[in-house]
Amino acid sequence: MADHFADHLPREIARKNSPICVGIDPILDSFPQSACVESRRQPDSLDAAVDDLFHFGQKILEIVAPHVPCVKFQSAYFERYLWEGVEAYYSLVQSARELGLVVIGDVKRGDIGSTASAYAAGHLVEPPFAEMDESAAPDAITVNPMLGLDTLEPFIQAARSQNKGLFVLVRTSNPGSAALQDVVLADGRTWSQALADQLRPLTEDPAMMGTSGWSAIGAVVGATQTHTIQSLRQRLPKSIFLLPGYGTQGATAEMTRAAFINGQGALVSASRSILYAHRTPKFASQFGDQWEKCVEAAVLEMKREINQVVGTNL
Amino acid sequence: MADHFADHLPREIARKNSPICVGIDPILDSFPQSACVESRRQPDSLDAAVDDLFHFGQKILEIVAPHVPCVKFQSAYFERYLWEGVEAYYSLVQSARELGLVVIGDVKRGDIGSTASAYAAGHLVEPPFAEMDESAAPDAITVNPMLGLDTLEPFIQAARSQNKGLFVLVRTSNPGSAALQDVVLADGRTWSQALADQLRPLTEDPAMMGTSGWSAIGAVVGATQTHTIQSLRQRLPKSIFLLPGYGTQGATAEMTRAAFINGQGALVSASRSILYAHRTPKFASQFGDQWEKCVEAAVLEMKREINQVVGTNL
Repeated sequence: MADHFADHLPREIARKNSPICVGIDPILDSFPQSACVESRRQPDSLDAAVDDLFHFGQKILEIVAPHVPCVKFQSAYFERYLWEGVEAYYSLVQSARELGLVVIGDVKRGDIGSTASAYAAGHLVEPPFAEMDESAAPDAITVNPMLGLDTLEPFIQAARSQNKGLFVLVRTSNPGSAALQDVVLADGRTWSQALADQLRPLTEDPAMMGTSGWSAIGAVVGATQTHTIQSLRQRLPKSIFLLPGYGTQGATAEMTRAAFINGQGALVSASRSILYAHRTPKFASQFGDQWEKCVEAAVLEMKREINQVVGTNL
Repeated sequence: MADHFADHLPREIARKNSPICVGIDPILDSFPQSACVESRRQPDSLDAAVDDLFHFGQKILEIVAPHVPCVKFQSAYFERYLWEGVEAYYSLVQSARELGLVVIGDVKRGDIGSTASAYAAGHLVEPPFAEMDESAAPDAITVNPMLGLDTLEPFIQAARSQNKGLFVLVRTSNPGSAALQDVVLADGRTWSQALADQLRPLTEDPAMMGTSGWSAIGAVVGATQTHTIQSLRQRLPKSIFLLPGYGTQGATAEMTRAAFINGQGALVSASRSILYAHRTPKFASQFGDQWEKCVEAAVLEMKREINQVVGTNL
């Protein structure tokens, strides 16, 4: 990918007319019956589980690719199937890129110095090995900044050299996040605000800025608090916001409005409400066992809802 | 492992008379020449790299097992070799357990709700799959608490059900950590102190306490600041402290003194100063190309240094 991430992502958002990211969180227990062929036959088999997981993921990618610009793979659901799950992760990343999707690896890695470099090498840099004849790494990954912003440097270097992107966890959407992220400092800022202020100069480094005016260093901001989004948007005006929490976690389209600037600069992510739409009564009653149609209907509904809020600027 | 982690680890520390953890951070570029057989022959081969990495790791385990109770695998150095590296990680975890070592997986994972459960399933729970006929998961893992202590619950549940342990990142040893972890709150505590105070009741939950008086929920505390260790030791009196930063990162044995209570409750970790001791002039001049002897000498030297500080209580 020769294109700067901060240009590539906004262009794909505009082209698909949809600032939406589908989260690939494959949880076997939530799969439609017909997608559990192997794992129902051999319930304690690792190979069978990974087989079902891969084929479900592949099917989801094919359904959503015409409608959304971006998918986000949640690494944990692959790692739980050990190295075979990790192999399926890289295979699906490659499939998604072949389908023209922008791919985010939701790995939330963070560590110091040379360890961070090793994570960047494994998760962001295109594999340099002779055995891997095609690209397999995501276009961007999520990173955890708790260890200090010096620990982001190896990730930033890798992103710069590969024209890739980062999404730094700034404020998450879970109930307990406030106790550590919204805690108030002596100077009146919350911890997340202080983090955003430290992050801003890195996002505005000219090397990280695309011609679009956006930065290749984005931020993960939980979509469940409008006032938090507003305050962080002011502190990080160049970062594309990745907003998890839509759907199952309770965020509405209206809540995400504050993340957009003139209809741009944000990506709303939904996972379970899309992947497992066959469990939503209105879709189930309309499409019965055709879970693929439930997934597509859920994506299209989310697209309408978000676009109503974002307006006609796309 | 039927034994409670908070009893198992202290007993092994006492048995080996050494509160030391060797960090397995395999970096091919730092390997002794004679350990790079395959990767020198095929420099761009993934298989060759993983082969060398596995054999070096296996050799290190055999050298250190008689002298130390514990090893810590740094996951990043395996993940950089994609799923094949991850397979080598689990193989070495199994080797280490067969050698009687307590094994910590340094994975620093952290995420919300069901995602955290998936990480716990992949990294802490013994694999329940038919294909895996022997145990392969570490005895404990490191976790990142930035997302809030509610996100530790799935890890704690997994640890409890499996008699395993956790080491929660509380204060790290890198230079940039202060800007986010030592930042002062309105109530005068640092962010890390507030984190420690929130963590304390979880560590003192009776289900997590061993008969040793220690908790299965430990803390990672950078060994480079004595005053920080003292303050966190007061706030987390039941947690075993895992102290990285010894050796290459500049911490001395004296600095770690504050972490011990009557000679117990801490584990000092060193990685590169042990694994790559062939690059330390005094060992190289003594043993020449025999890198295995350099590793053993470095372990024994560290053991002497730490035991002088800890005293005769072991």
